[in-house]
Amino acid sequence: MKPFMLASREYKPEDTIIEISSSAKKVFLGEGYCTIIAGPCAVEGAEQYLSLARILADLGVHILRAGIFKPRTSPYSFKGLGSEGMDIVDQARMITGLPVITEIMDVRDLELLHDRVDILQVGSRNMQNFTLLEEMGRIKRPIMLKRGLSATIEEWLLAAEYILNGGNEQVILCERGIRTFEPYTRNTVDIGAVALLKQLSHLPIIVDPSHATGRWRMVAPVARAAIAAGADGIMVEVHQNPDKALSDGKQSLTPENFASLRDQILKLAELDNKKI
Amino acid sequence: MKPFMLASREYKPEDTIIEISSSAKKVFLGEGYCTIIAGPCAVEGAEQYLSLARILADLGVHILRAGIFKPRTSPYSFKGLGSEGMDIVDQARMITGLPVITEIMDVRDLELLHDRVDILQVGSRNMQNFTLLEEMGRIKRPIMLKRGLSATIEEWLLAAEYILNGGNEQVILCERGIRTFEPYTRNTVDIGAVALLKQLSHLPIIVDPSHATGRWRMVAPVARAAIAAGADGIMVEVHQNPDKALSDGKQSLTPENFASLRDQILKLAELDNKKI
Amino acid sequence: MKPFMLASREYKPEDTIIEISSSAKKVFLGEGYCTIIAGPCAVEGAEQYLSLARILADLGVHILRAGIFKPRTSPYSFKGLGSEGMDIVDQARMITGLPVITEIMDVRDLELLHDRVDILQVGSRNMQNFTLLEEMGRIKRPIMLKRGLSATIEEWLLAAEYILNGGNEQVILCERGIRTFEPYTRNTVDIGAVALLKQLSHLPIIVDPSHATGRWRMVAPVARAAIAAGADGIMVEVHQNPDKALSDGKQSLTPENFASLRDQILKLAELDNKKI
Amino acid sequence: MKPFMLASREYKPEDTIIEISSSAKKVFLGEGYCTIIAGPCAVEGAEQYLSLARILADLGVHILRAGIFKPRTSPYSFKGLGSEGMDIVDQARMITGLPVITEIMDVRDLELLHDRVDILQVGSRNMQNFTLLEEMGRIKRPIMLKRGLSATIEEWLLAAEYILNGGNEQVILCERGIRTFEPYTRNTVDIGAVALLKQLSHLPIIVDPSHATGRWRMVAPVARAAIAAGADGIMVEVHQNPDKALSDGKQSLTPENFASLRDQILKLAELDNKKI
Repeated sequence: MKPFMLASREYKPEDTIIEISSSAKKVFLGEGYCTIIAGPCAVEGAEQYLSLARILADLGVHILRAGIFKPRTSPYSFKGLGSEGMDIVDQARMITGLPVITEIMDVRDLELLHDRVDILQVGSRNMQNFTLLEEMGRIKRPIMLKRGLSATIEEWLLAAEYILNGGNEQVILCERGIRTFEPYTRNTVDIGAVALLKQLSHLPIIVDPSHATGRWRMVAPVARAAIAAGADGIMVEVHQNPDKALSDGKQSLTPENFASLRDQILKLAELDNKKI
Repeated sequence: MKPFMLASREYKPEDTIIEISSSAKKVFLGEGYCTIIAGPCAVEGAEQYLSLARILADLGVHILRAGIFKPRTSPYSFKGLGSEGMDIVDQARMITGLPVITEIMDVRDLELLHDRVDILQVGSRNMQNFTLLEEMGRIKRPIMLKRGLSATIEEWLLAAEYILNGGNEQVILCERGIRTFEPYTRNTVDIGAVALLKQLSHLPIIVDPSHATGRWRMVAPVARAAIAAGADGIMVEVHQNPDKALSDGKQSLTPENFASLRDQILKLAELDNKKI
Repeated sequence: MKPFMLASREYKPEDTIIEISSSAKKVFLGEGYCTIIAGPCAVEGAEQYLSLARILADLGVHILRAGIFKPRTSPYSFKGLGSEGMDIVDQARMITGLPVITEIMDVRDLELLHDRVDILQVGSRNMQNFTLLEEMGRIKRPIMLKRGLSATIEEWLLAAEYILNGGNEQVILCERGIRTFEPYTRNTVDIGAVALLKQLSHLPIIVDPSHATGRWRMVAPVARAAIAAGADGIMVEVHQNPDKALSDGKQSLTPENFASLRDQILKLAELDNKKI
Repeated sequence: MKPFMLASREYKPEDTIIEISSSAKKVFLGEGYCTIIAGPCAVEGAEQYLSLARILADLGVHILRAGIFKPRTSPYSFKGLGSEGMDIVDQARMITGLPVITEIMDVRDLELLHDRVDILQVGSRNMQNFTLLEEMGRIKRPIMLKRGLSATIEEWLLAAEYILNGGNEQVILCERGIRTFEPYTRNTVDIGAVALLKQLSHLPIIVDPSHATGRWRMVAPVARAAIAAGADGIMVEVHQNPDKALSDGKQSLTPENFASLRDQILKLAELDNKKI
C-alpha cells in the first residue's frame, strides 16, 4: 500500500471531476476537460482588474485568478490588496459570472474568503503548512494545492491526503515547477509528474507554466506540453501591461499573446477529445 | 545593498548575542559561545521526558528540546502530545531549571506557548509561512528559524528579515540540511552556509546534525564539523531508547553517545576559546 | 554576448538542419521536421537486433539506435557487445537502409565507428569529456550531444561550442532528463529547456523520454509533451521483450506500444505542419 | 551486499593507507594521517610555480598541486600549459623533493604523465569517464578520484570500484562539493559524505574546500570542518597573487592565509592524534 491512500487510484479508480457551481457559469475540472485559469498575478486596482476580467471572459477563460494575499520572499515587497481587494474580486465575479480562485495564507482569513471565492489555493510555500491543510479539510470549497518548491510527488500527495482525510474531497493538484540547479529558468516544470500523477491518483492536475518558467516566451510551449502530457488544464498569468505589473511581470502574457495560446491549447484539447 | 538589510552585517557589524533569562539558568547564544540544545524529537510521555531531561541536565545541556506539536509529512503519523505535552514540559523546566525550545506551527497556539517556553522554533516547512513569521516579529521571545528544505541562504535571511522587521531582534538561525539528489542521507548539511552566514549576518547560527543526516552514526562527525566551521552551537536528538522512539529514532543518540559527543564538542570549543 | 557564440541564434539566426545522407534513406533533423529515433538500449545479439530493426523500419522509424558500447555505473554490468556488435549494426543498416546512431565513449574507437555509423552520440556522462568533444569537432559526422545529468543549459551549449569550434557544425542536442531530488522517476525531463533552446540556439533539439523517465508508462505522455513544446524529434527505447532486456528494460516500449506512440506523435507533428 | 564490493569496508575492514615513495619525501594518505595538498589551480609559468613551490614546501605542505591540463567549461578559456608545463613540474619536484599530483583528462596522455607525477587525478567531470577509469585500473600509480558534480555516494564508490577492479588498489576519494540550487556558493560541500565514507569504505578521503566553495573566505572554515568530520586531509588552492590567476583566483588563498589555515589544521589534527 502506498503511504497516500485516499489520494490513490487504488482507493478510487474513477477520476475525480470537480464541479464549480457556486458562480454564474458552471465549470468542470478533471479528466476529459481542459480548463483554463487566467488572470494577473495580483489584483492591483479596480480599474485594471475589472477591465482585464472582461477581456479574459471574452477570450473564453473558465476561471479567474484573483490574488489578493501574495506570499513574498521579502517583507519589503508588495503583498496584495488584502480585504480591500476582495471587494474588487466580488465585482469581477458578478460582472463576468466566472468563478474565481484566490490564495489563502492564513487560517484566520477563512471567514473573509470562504463565501466569496470558488476555489481556495494553497501556495507552494504552504504545501506543508499542516495547520492550513487541516483547516482546508474541514470546509467544502474546492482546494487547489500547489506543489512545494522541492516537494516530492509522494509528499505532495500526502499533503492532499491531509485535506481528503479531513473530509474535503475536492482537491486539485497544481504543478508549478520545482527547484533545481538550473539558473536560466525560475523553476523546472516537472512534466513527468503530470504523467505520473494521472497513473497514481484520481485527482485533477493543472499546470502553471508562468511560475514554472518565469519567462513569458516559454509560457506557451510549456503550456502546450502540459496538455499534451495529459494535464487537465493550465493556469496562466495575464496582464495588460506586463512591464508595469507590481509582481511577476516578466512571466505575464499580454491579452494578445494569451489569445494565441488559447487557440493552440484548444487544438490540442480537440485532438484528445477534451471538453472545453 | 543586499535584499536583507536588518539581518546583514553591514547594518549591524557586532554579533547578536541572545540571552535567555526567562528560565532558572541563564543561557547565551551567539558568537563566542558554544551552546548545546538536546532532547527527544517529541515529548512522548511524562516519565520518558522527565527522566531524560534530568539526564541531559546532568550532562551539561544548556537548552532542552521540547517538541509537543510535530509537523508530519503524513496525516496518519504521530503528531505530538499538544497542550497535554505542555504540562510535562513545564515540569521539566521547573525540575532542571533549563530553558526549553518548542516548535510553533499555528499562530493560534501562541497563547498556549508564549509564557511557557523560552525559545519558539519555526520549522523548515514553515520557513516561508509569512503569517507565522509576522506573528513571531510581534513578540519578544527568541525565535529559532530553521532553514527551509530547499531555501537559498538569501531566502532564509529574508525570512529572518520578516521577524526582525516586525520588531523582534532575537532570531537564531538553524541549518538542518538541504534537499539534494543524494539518497544515502536524509538531507545534505550545508556546512559552507555556516561559514558564509558568519560573514553575511550578525545572527547566531546553530546546526542540527540529527535532521541533517538522519543517521545517528553521522551525528557526531557532522556536529564536530559544525563547530569547527564556526557554528555557535548544535541541536541534537537524544532518546533513551531510539529503537522505540515514536519519531526520528534512527537519528537519535543514546545518552551515552551524547555524552561522548559533548566531550568532543567541548574540546573543539576550547580550541576556539568559546564559552560553554 | 553570451559565453556560447557559435551555438547562439545571434550568431546564426537560421535553424541548422542536419541532413543524413550517408545511409540509403535520406533523413533530416531540425526545425520543421519531426524525426523519430528508436531501437533497443543495447544491441544484444544478431537475431534480436535484426528482427527489431525490420519491425521499426516497417513502423516508419527514421534512425536506428545501435548501442554497442554502453557506459555503466557499475563495472560488473553488461557493457555492450563492442566491435562484435558493429558487424550486426552493419547488417541492420544494409537491410533496412536506415541510418544508425551509436555512442562513442573512447576516442580510440573512432577508427572503428567513423565510417560505419551515421550519427555519433556523446552520452550524458561524457558531456564534459573535453578530450572526446575536441575529437568530435575534428570529424564531419553529425554528433548527438546528450545533456549531462546536472549540466546547466549554458554548460550544455558550451559543450556544443567545443564541437562547433573544432569545425564540425552538425551538432544535435538531446535532452534526457536532469537529476533532481525526486525519487519516483529516474530523472526529471526539463521540458522548459526544449522551449528555451529553440530561442537561444539554432541547433536541433531531440528529447529522450525513455532515459528521462525510466518508466515505460511515462514514455508516451512525455514524448507527446516534447513535440508539443517544440522538440524536433524523439529518441525512444524499444525492445521485443522488455522484461528480458540486458539493460533498461523498465523503460523500453514493446513494438505495439511504440506503434501507438508513433501515431500520437504524427498527429501532433501535423498540427504544427512538421515534415515526417 | 552493496553494489560496490572492493571499495567496501565489509570486504576490507582495515583502512587503506597509501604510501607515496616515488618522490624524495615519503608521504602517507589515509586514516590516522592529516595530509595537506596545496598549489595553484594551474601551472602558469616556471617563475610563478617554482617560487610558490618553494614557499609551500617551507610551509610544510606534503604534496604539490601541479595542474597542467585544465578541464574548462568553455573552449575559449585557458586550458593549462600541457606538456610544456610538465617540465616545470619536474623541476618543482626536484627542487622541493615533494610528490606532485596532476589531473589526467585523456588516456593518450598517460605516457607523458606516468613516470613524472606521483598521484594522478581524475576530475569531477570525468568521474564516470569509464574509459579513463579502466585505464587507471591498469597502472600502479595512486589515483585521486574526485566526486562528480552530482554523483551520489554510491556512484562515486562504483567509479572507484572500476579502478580497484582493474587491479589498482591505490584510490583516494576527494569530496569537492556537489551541485545544488544554492547560488551563493559555487558548490555545496557534502560534509556528511565524509563521515559516511569513513563508515562505508576503507579508502582515504580528502576534501577540496577551494572548489567546493569558490570563495577564499570560506576555505578555512570548510577545511577545518572537513578535518573535524574525519577527513584524512585537504587539498587547497594557493596563489601568490589570486587576483591575477589565470583560473580560479576567487577561491585561492595567499601564502599568508594558507599559513594561518595550516596552523588551524594542525591543531585539529593533534586533537585527534593524527600524524602530520
